Amino acid sequence: MNIINTLKLAKASSLAMALATTSVKNEALEKIAVELENGVQEILRGNQLDLTNAIANGVSQSLQDRIMLDEKRIHALAEAVRVIKQLPDPVGDSVRGMKLQNGLNVQQVRVPFGVIGCIYEARPNVTVDIATLAIKSGNAAVLRGGSAAENTNQILNSLIQSGLKKAGLPAEAICSVDEFGREGAVELMKARDYVDVLIPRGSANLIKTVVAESTVPVIETGSGVVHIFVDESADLNQALPIIMNSKVQRPSVCNALETLLVHEAVAEQLLPLLAQELEASAVTVHACEKSQALIPRSIRATEEDWATEYHSLELAIRVVTGLDEALDHIAEYSTKHTDSILTEDIGNAEKFLAEVDSAVVMVNASTRFTDGGEFGFGAEVGISTQKLHARGPMGLSELTSTKWLVRGRGQIRN
Amino acid sequence: MNIINTLKLAKASSLAMALATTSVKNEALEKIAVELENGVQEILRGNQLDLTNAIANGVSQSLQDRIMLDEKRIHALAEAVRVIKQLPDPVGDSVRGMKLQNGLNVQQVRVPFGVIGCIYEARPNVTVDIATLAIKSGNAAVLRGGSAAENTNQILNSLIQSGLKKAGLPAEAICSVDEFGREGAVELMKARDYVDVLIPRGSANLIKTVVAESTVPVIETGSGVVHIFVDESADLNQALPIIMNSKVQRPSVCNALETLLVHEAVAEQLLPLLAQELEASAVTVHACEKSQALIPRSIRATEEDWATEYHSLELAIRVVTGLDEALDHIAEYSTKHTDSILTEDIGNAEKFLAEVDSAVVMVNASTRFTDGGEFGFGAEVGISTQKLHARGPMGLSELTSTKWLVRGRGQIRN
Repeated sequence: MNIINTLKLAKASSLAMALATTSVKNEALEKIAVELENGVQEILRGNQLDLTNAIANGVSQSLQDRIMLDEKRIHALAEAVRVIKQLPDPVGDSVRGMKLQNGLNVQQVRVPFGVIGCIYEARPNVTVDIATLAIKSGNAAVLRGGSAAENTNQILNSLIQSGLKKAGLPAEAICSVDEFGREGAVELMKARDYVDVLIPRGSANLIKTVVAESTVPVIETGSGVVHIFVDESADLNQALPIIMNSKVQRPSVCNALETLLVHEAVAEQLLPLLAQELEASAVTVHACEKSQALIPRSIRATEEDWATEYHSLELAIRVVTGLDEALDHIAEYSTKHTDSILTEDIGNAEKFLAEVDSAVVMVNASTRFTDGGEFGFGAEVGISTQKLHARGPMGLSELTSTKWLVRGRGQIRN
Repeated sequence: MNIINTLKLAKASSLAMALATTSVKNEALEKIAVELENGVQEILRGNQLDLTNAIANGVSQSLQDRIMLDEKRIHALAEAVRVIKQLPDPVGDSVRGMKLQNGLNVQQVRVPFGVIGCIYEARPNVTVDIATLAIKSGNAAVLRGGSAAENTNQILNSLIQSGLKKAGLPAEAICSVDEFGREGAVELMKARDYVDVLIPRGSANLIKTVVAESTVPVIETGSGVVHIFVDESADLNQALPIIMNSKVQRPSVCNALETLLVHEAVAEQLLPLLAQELEASAVTVHACEKSQALIPRSIRATEEDWATEYHSLELAIRVVTGLDEALDHIAEYSTKHTDSILTEDIGNAEKFLAEVDSAVVMVNASTRFTDGGEFGFGAEVGISTQKLHARGPMGLSELTSTKWLVRGRGQIRN
């Protein structure tokens, strides 16, 4: 078996996936959930192997934790499959339609992409997550997971394939190219004839590599250097909880706050209060020259801090002279994920909404709301920080393309 | 001036373009139309230079014709600008919106991409076309035209910039990188920091190069190996005009018919009649073994013919055993542009619509209807044959991305 054959099998099975009815796809998802539940011991054996290798290779505690599955996590995976099963099926939805003057009936409908490629790091839950999102949206998928989880992924893949088969769908609709090692990833990035779209999931570095090397169209999901600007007119009683929620509620995720910009007119009033709360939550502050004096135990921020996604209990703070300087700072350092203004001035709110070039722009709200679940999409494929195809939180419909259906009775063009 | 500076200027002007109101953009388009009309002599002088060089370099008659502008063509260009001026502005259109349970107001609105790159061949009309589509959709644009038209393009660019300036918009919103030669195209394809999307327009080879070399996201507009399948149950009185219209009405364009597939049960009845009409229209037929006998003066088709976009009065014809063989042929050779079935059998019509993986799939209609104008989009940016972002005819709204606006009153996440 070589990798091209694997890609061909995925492609060949994509038609059956595209034509599968919602109920057959849901049946496959239910079978997969059951396979995962019945396969707990098998999964744990494979996972133990990966963990033993990881420890032998001296990988970090946090990577070990990302690789690790236990009975509870496996049951949570099965339940997540059932959540996706409950979501509405986007395939076949009508996007636009019209009757032309000549009587032609023209309709734009959602269709699956065909084959989705995914390159991700050593997190076995992503294997189940992407596979089930692909199945629900009528796609086949080719997966390339991090090698540190390869034994776990191999078992998860075979359970997923077994679930597909039991529902009468082609097992090869979900394929792994893990066995081909690094070459598998390279071939996947060049497989324009077999793969319709590639979604990298993981670190900024992984995503950067895929964007640079791939000839298959990529949906970039992204890193978030997320900003809040506290305007002169902000309601400071509202500002404190929003800032704290944005920073500490879940600091490891991409919609968490990384840089706080504060209007100089409110800095003296806001920052000492904020400093107390940040300290109580064990947040390390990287402060600009002006703010450092107002924040005890803060570290002096460097140029690098403004461009850093900490993913942890660290926060950069900068005092600015006003909205314009805030907009300039955001234009320079934002990764175009999420930025929020806290203001009671309607003109400044509208200017911020219009001028900040990010996927999600907010007024008086926590940046943690940039999330497929919060937006009501049910599932979260990722947060796109690119402008092509999908921008912001992606749901199942972002895993589809469209096709135009034209029905005539003999029309010809004049 | 180096190329990075040009790209930076385009990027810097994109915010003003994004914020410009519809009436200011329309004013700029009107000024540009007037500049073109007043600049006829200047344009003709530049164009004469290009034509003299082209003749000295021995370029083909058809390329000379594509480069050539005369007074009539320039006035047509100005009129085309006014047509785009009349179209609705997509910027700011609300795509989706909802009020979340916590009271957050969430709205997805259309925004310009920012900077559009375009690489195209020696057709000066594309310069005006892309520039005005970009302006109307609130984008800046960086243009790289074919060097054989560089003198004409230089003058057109300066007239466009002058029109922008007269309407109070930044002249650099439309920039050319022609002066940097082939390096200009290479840099443009790598300019991820400055260019949001790249649209190649021209030959299949040009598009292939851009797709392979670009790290900027590309919208592939495409070549069309377009099929019609005449089913056993087709109304042959309808079939003849549809086939002839699809082939001969404008053979040089991408939605023209290239391969006709005929069910064996109707081949003997249809093909001799069709052969007469094709011969009357001077169409050369490349016929399969079975059809050759039924079509006098046909040439035997080779494997290569099935994959050829003739763009001329040539047609490949193949007799198939039925719908399944037709679907297999289309799956193998279609460029996923447009394919049409002629049938009175509703089951076969629905199967064809569901299984053919092309941007536009038709029943009982001429393939020539795949067109932004026919679909009512007003302007035609191109026909996308890729699945990401846009598929099929692209109008102005396909030159936009979206952004989520979230308006709160202090909400934080639980």
